[in-house]
Amino acid sequence: MRGVVLHTPGDVRVEDREDPAIIEATDAVIRITSTCICGSDLWPYRGIEPADRTPMGHEFVGVVEEVGSEVITVAPGDFVVGSFVISDGTCQICRSGYPSSCVNRSFTGEIGTQAEYARIPYADGTLVATPDQPDADLVPHLLAASDVLGTGWFGAVAAQAGPGKTVAVVGDGAVGLLAVLAARQLGAERIIAFSRHPERQALARDFGATDILTERGDAGAAAVKELTSGLGAHSVIEAVGTQESITQAIGSTRPGGHLGFVGVSHNVTLPGIDLFFAQINMLGGPAPVRRFLPDLIHRIWTGTIHPGKVFDLTLPLDNAADGYRAMDQRRATKVLLTL
Amino acid sequence: MRGVVLHTPGDVRVEDREDPAIIEATDAVIRITSTCICGSDLWPYRGIEPADRTPMGHEFVGVVEEVGSEVITVAPGDFVVGSFVISDGTCQICRSGYPSSCVNRSFTGEIGTQAEYARIPYADGTLVATPDQPDADLVPHLLAASDVLGTGWFGAVAAQAGPGKTVAVVGDGAVGLLAVLAARQLGAERIIAFSRHPERQALARDFGATDILTERGDAGAAAVKELTSGLGAHSVIEAVGTQESITQAIGSTRPGGHLGFVGVSHNVTLPGIDLFFAQINMLGGPAPVRRFLPDLIHRIWTGTIHPGKVFDLTLPLDNAADGYRAMDQRRATKVLLTL
Repeated sequence: MRGVVLHTPGDVRVEDREDPAIIEATDAVIRITSTCICGSDLWPYRGIEPADRTPMGHEFVGVVEEVGSEVITVAPGDFVVGSFVISDGTCQICRSGYPSSCVNRSFTGEIGTQAEYARIPYADGTLVATPDQPDADLVPHLLAASDVLGTGWFGAVAAQAGPGKTVAVVGDGAVGLLAVLAARQLGAERIIAFSRHPERQALARDFGATDILTERGDAGAAAVKELTSGLGAHSVIEAVGTQESITQAIGSTRPGGHLGFVGVSHNVTLPGIDLFFAQINMLGGPAPVRRFLPDLIHRIWTGTIHPGKVFDLTLPLDNAADGYRAMDQRRATKVLLTL
Repeated sequence: MRGVVLHTPGDVRVEDREDPAIIEATDAVIRITSTCICGSDLWPYRGIEPADRTPMGHEFVGVVEEVGSEVITVAPGDFVVGSFVISDGTCQICRSGYPSSCVNRSFTGEIGTQAEYARIPYADGTLVATPDQPDADLVPHLLAASDVLGTGWFGAVAAQAGPGKTVAVVGDGAVGLLAVLAARQLGAERIIAFSRHPERQALARDFGATDILTERGDAGAAAVKELTSGLGAHSVIEAVGTQESITQAIGSTRPGGHLGFVGVSHNVTLPGIDLFFAQINMLGGPAPVRRFLPDLIHRIWTGTIHPGKVFDLTLPLDNAADGYRAMDQRRATKVLLTL
């Protein structure tokens, strides 16, 4: 089969990879119909993480080709959305709502779903079938649920966005924008988005932002306080992962408020004494997307939400290298790859 | 009036201080009947924090002498328990349950309650009257509510200790021991206390600990996992504040679990990436004792809890220097000073 392989940083190729097959009784093999490029794929692309003939990709939708003998919730022919984390769905951690910390966790990124096919372990714990075959216009929205929507949603849930709450979102990438959408769906009263990009500001407003701020760092936190009687937001979602953004997010949260941090922290250190006196509730980590998938698929299927609007460039899989280049050069927010 | 003053590190004196008087309409003046020495009083005593003729003490019970014209919930003659944090009781942060982060917050430690009298600002937001004059044997228990019980209680609440939960408590000082008591009161199923001191182990068991562990650091976290099917505790309370203890506490918490951290962090830095992948709920800070005081006083008054057992040395105020020495040399867990 064809698949995207990162030979060395910057060197993206679409080439032959071995066809996957069922190994365990809990596996499924999926024919991938759409996949995409994630901001996190840029780390090895830019050499911040190692790359050595690495299969790429962790987001996907597709059609089940074959299942192992113990798979019960999906069957050949089903259209499925997969989480970017493989989870067994049965351990205590999964059952408590944290499949992304499953005791048998692995990451779909190790499989590489920018490809024609993929073997998905623990199919029941990882995949969710749609009610029927989706119309083509629904597919980008369903694909977004695989990671960026699910991650933004987790950020909003972790931040306890809801009725009566003022929510601030740090980060205007796909995850931050979809955290705005999630906060709106969860009933937040006021949603403050940080962004300096006109198109992203527009999409944030389309998704439900009521206020746009262009300040960053301490000035950003001060601007949120200015809007909230000096107290800070009830709920803050951090969707970047830098020292500046997490510090801004902590400083934007009122005492007793909630911070959901979903940007993968790179070289971030937090002074314990600052966390102590901030007196905020914090929860972060890789999003337990599988927990939210049935609900997210329902909202997409019924036309309630349109998260696929974050895709601003669509290319065939064979042109993946162009997609990486466009995201690296910030010409695209998120690139969809068709098969 | 007489009061404890720390002239320089190690130099504790009981000497004349100015008599307090009502200044603001929301003030009360209290005749203190019992106070105590806190582990945190040892920081300036040991020179870790500055000391320059510093009035000492932040825990107290006593009798209201006089109130300002706007005070409505306490009256002269009332026996009161005070929080170690002054809070107005009316701001949004207070009303949301976080009086220790009140917009008008100050710390009782700046007043110095190891003294005969104290002026307490925002009396309604800071003090709670007992149902009647307490019997002498109740007083140590009421005094414990002023900080160490309230702080341990907050740790247990922040850690969401409750029915069906396995709780681990890092720290066997007065706060850690009372966090064990709080977890038991909140209905926890299993309570793991870390301690190497036989008397403290015995008090932990008396307060409700079901398991005692003597390991520390990574070995301590591994021991908790060993007791919890490899997952970690649902609820962990950190009551020390060092790099080792907070790391141990994070490592003892299962994904999706809750960590309440109430040890004041000194020179602690937390790697963002570790917090990210730990995927635990965290809440800490100075305890909102005032939120819990009505409930805690009720439990003490009805003989349900006996938190004053943490006092293992009682001295007259005039002998405060002996009390500081005993705590510094670890001959006492917590020293009560009578007036």
